[in-house]
Amino acid sequence: MSGLLIRDTIIVPVDNEKKDKLWFTGDVAIEESKIKEVGKNLQGKYRDFEIIEGKNSLTMPGFVNCHTHAAMTMLRGYADDLPIIEWLSEKIWPCEEHLTEKDIYWGTKLAISEMVKSGTTTFADMYSFMDQVAYAVDESGIRASLSRGIIGKDEEKDELALRESEEFVKEWHGKGEGRITCMLGPHAPYTCSPAYIKKIKKLANELGVGIHIHLAEALSEVEDIKSRYKMRPIELMDSIGLFTGGHVLAAHCVHLSKEEINILVNNNVGIAHNPQSNMKLASGIAPLPILLEKGALVGLGTDGAASNNNLDMLEEMRTCALFHKVSTMDPTVLSAYQVLKMSTREGARVLGLNDVGTLAVGQKADVIMFDLKKPHMTPLHDPIANIVYSAQSADVKTVIVNGKIIMKDRSLITMDEEKIIFEAQRLGEDLVKRK
Amino acid sequence: MSGLLIRDTIIVPVDNEKKDKLWFTGDVAIEESKIKEVGKNLQGKYRDFEIIEGKNSLTMPGFVNCHTHAAMTMLRGYADDLPIIEWLSEKIWPCEEHLTEKDIYWGTKLAISEMVKSGTTTFADMYSFMDQVAYAVDESGIRASLSRGIIGKDEEKDELALRESEEFVKEWHGKGEGRITCMLGPHAPYTCSPAYIKKIKKLANELGVGIHIHLAEALSEVEDIKSRYKMRPIELMDSIGLFTGGHVLAAHCVHLSKEEINILVNNNVGIAHNPQSNMKLASGIAPLPILLEKGALVGLGTDGAASNNNLDMLEEMRTCALFHKVSTMDPTVLSAYQVLKMSTREGARVLGLNDVGTLAVGQKADVIMFDLKKPHMTPLHDPIANIVYSAQSADVKTVIVNGKIIMKDRSLITMDEEKIIFEAQRLGEDLVKRK
Repeated sequence: MSGLLIRDTIIVPVDNEKKDKLWFTGDVAIEESKIKEVGKNLQGKYRDFEIIEGKNSLTMPGFVNCHTHAAMTMLRGYADDLPIIEWLSEKIWPCEEHLTEKDIYWGTKLAISEMVKSGTTTFADMYSFMDQVAYAVDESGIRASLSRGIIGKDEEKDELALRESEEFVKEWHGKGEGRITCMLGPHAPYTCSPAYIKKIKKLANELGVGIHIHLAEALSEVEDIKSRYKMRPIELMDSIGLFTGGHVLAAHCVHLSKEEINILVNNNVGIAHNPQSNMKLASGIAPLPILLEKGALVGLGTDGAASNNNLDMLEEMRTCALFHKVSTMDPTVLSAYQVLKMSTREGARVLGLNDVGTLAVGQKADVIMFDLKKPHMTPLHDPIANIVYSAQSADVKTVIVNGKIIMKDRSLITMDEEKIIFEAQRLGEDLVKRK
Repeated sequence: MSGLLIRDTIIVPVDNEKKDKLWFTGDVAIEESKIKEVGKNLQGKYRDFEIIEGKNSLTMPGFVNCHTHAAMTMLRGYADDLPIIEWLSEKIWPCEEHLTEKDIYWGTKLAISEMVKSGTTTFADMYSFMDQVAYAVDESGIRASLSRGIIGKDEEKDELALRESEEFVKEWHGKGEGRITCMLGPHAPYTCSPAYIKKIKKLANELGVGIHIHLAEALSEVEDIKSRYKMRPIELMDSIGLFTGGHVLAAHCVHLSKEEINILVNNNVGIAHNPQSNMKLASGIAPLPILLEKGALVGLGTDGAASNNNLDMLEEMRTCALFHKVSTMDPTVLSAYQVLKMSTREGARVLGLNDVGTLAVGQKADVIMFDLKKPHMTPLHDPIANIVYSAQSADVKTVIVNGKIIMKDRSLITMDEEKIIFEAQRLGEDLVKRK
C-alpha cells in the first residue's frame, strides 16, 4: 500500500486531551483515505509513502465550517452596513431570485477554493440548485454535508420540494468516495409551518439523514414565533419532535431561554455558532459560554459570504474567543484550545460525522499544514495560541482531504483557480445587474 | 526628477469624500517622499519614473497603527486566556523586568516586519529602551511616533526618566528623513501621579512634542482613580491641564462618562481605539459610535502582541466594525469606509501627523497595494467592502513609505526577514526562561 508521510512536524491531534500533550513533534502516516499512524520516526516503517516535509510546519485536522450558503460568495461585498430588512428585501432576495444553475456552480467553486485556501476541509451547506453544489464538491475533493433549502409556499410547491429533496439525497448521499453526505433543509420555523417541518422530519427519518435548519437567529424571529404559536422557536421545534429520532444541525441559536438551552443539550442538537455573521447583522450574542458549560455540542460556521464577508475559519475562531471574553467581561472564557476543538472535532460531530475532525488513527485523513515561519507566528511559545490568535489563512500551505492532497504549497491541485476567479467575477457582475 | 508611477490601479485616496468618488481607476505618481499627482494616464508625463503595474491591485494610504508596544511581540502567545491580574503579575511583568536592549531591538524588528507585511506604514509606540526602537525604525524605513514609557517611582528615578525622555526627543525627533517623531509617554494616571504628569506635560510643551498615555482602559482603573482623586481618569487629566497646549494621544478610552466624552471631543484629543485588545483582556466596550457622532478624533490600534496577538490592522478594522454593530444591535454603525478612514487618515491625525494618511497631492507617499486576484476578494462589487470585510494581510503585496519601496511582491527590501525570525525566536525562548 502507498500513502503519505508528513515528517518532523508539530502535531495538534485534537484528540484525547486527557492522555496526550495537546501538541508534540512527530510524523503522520496516511494510508488511502485514513490516518494510519501518528508517532515518532515513522519513515522506516512506511518506506514507499510519499514524503511531505513538516519542518517549520504545524499539522492538525482541517477545519469544519458548520454553516454556509456557499454560492452567496457571488454577493460578497454587494450589500453591507444596511438595516436588516433593507439588506434582505432590496438587495439579497432580489438577487437570489435570479440565481441560475451556473451562478450556483461557479459561486460554490469560488467558495470551495477560498475554503480550501484557508484550511477548511468540510462544510455544511444549505442553498438551492444543490446538484450544482454536489458537482462542485465532487470535483474539488472537499468534504461536505449538503441540504436543499426548503421554504414553505403552497401545497403543490411544498410537495415538489419534498420530492426534490428526496431525489437529491438518493442521488448524492455517500457519493464522492463518501465525502458527500446529505441532510434535509427546512429553512426555519418562520418560513416553514410546524406541519411542514414535521413532514420533512418524517422523510429525513425514512431516508436516514439529518436535518439542517436555522433556529433562533434574530429577536424578530423569536417574537414572530411566539406571537404565532405561543412558544419560542426551539420549544416549538421540540413540541413537534424535531430533535428526536435523527440528528439535527441548528444554525445560530442566538436567542435562547434556559429551557431551550436544556432542550438543545438534552437532545445533543448540533449547534452551528456563527459569530461574525451574528455581529455583522447585529443579530445578537449567543450564550456560548453557558452552552459549553452545560455540555452542548457546538461548532463554528461562517454563514454565507454576504454576511461575513469571507469563509475564513481562523477569523471565526479568533472572533469567537475575543467576542465572548468581552461579552462576559471574563478573559478566561473560550480558551484558544476550546475554539480549536469547536472548529475541528466538535464541528464534525455537529454535522453528525464521527470519523472526521481529529488525527486519531482510523479517522478520515482530513489534514492541514500551517507554515510557522512567518513574522506574525514568531516566537513559537505556544503553537495553539499562535494558530488561534495570530495566524492568517494564507499561512495554510497544504490541505489533504480523504487522504488526497488538494492544495500543495498554496497551489490548488483539483481546481483551476484562475478560471474560477474569472467566471465568478463575470457572473457576479451580471447577477447584480439582472435583479 | 525620478520617482515611482503606479499604473492602472484601483485607487482609494481616503481624501475629500465630498468631491470625489470613494474609489476610481487611475495612476499615482510619487516624487521623492511625496504624492505628486493622482489621475488618469500619467505615464506620458512621468516618463523616467519607475513603473509599478497596478492591474488587479488596489492602491490606498498605508495603515496607521495608533497604539503599540512593538517589542511585546517577544511575548506573543506566551500567556493567554488568564485572569488579568495573573496575566500581568505572574507572566508579563516578570518577563518585562528581564528585557534587554537586544530583546527590544529584535522584538521591534519582528514587529516592524509583521506590520509592513500587513500594510502598516506608521505606528505609535510606547515602551522601554526606545533608542533601540528608533534604530529599528530608522533602518527599516517605516514611519513611527515614539515615546519612552514613564512609570512613577521615586523622586530620583522620576527625574532620571524625565531627563532620558528629553534626551531621547532631542536625539530622535525629526530623524530618519523625518519619519521619526517623538512624544513623551507617561504610562497612565494610575502609574504616574498628577504632579508627575504635570511635570511631563510641561517638558513636552517645552520640547514641542505631544503626549502618549493610556487612559480609562479598565473599570478597575476608573475605580482606583475615583477613590484616590474623587474624579474619573479623564476628568483628572483635564483638571491638571493635560489636554491643553499640545497634542495628546490617549490609548483605549473605554470607560467614559458623558462629561469625559465632551472633554475628549472639545480638546481634540487623539483616541487610539484598540478593539481586539479590549476584547481579549475583557477590558470593556468603548462607546465608539457615540464618540464618532460627537466628532471625536479616533484611530485604530492593535496594542501589544501579548494582548492581541498580532499587529494586523485589517483584523482590527473588521473586528471594530463587527463588534460595534452587535454591541449597539445596529448593523449600520461603523461602515466599511468609516473604519477605513480611522485606520488611515484619522489615525494619522490621532498621532498629530497632518501630512500622512491620504493620497492627496503633497502628502507623504505612504502607500500600500493589495492584490485583488484572490478567491476571497472575488467578485469585486465594492473594493472598499472587500478590503475591510474580506481581505487578509497576505493580500498586501507592495508597501511604500516616504516614497521608498520597502516591500515588493511580499519581499521585504530593507529587512532580513529570515534573520529577524531567527533572532526573535532565539531571544523570545530565552526571555521566558530568564524570568
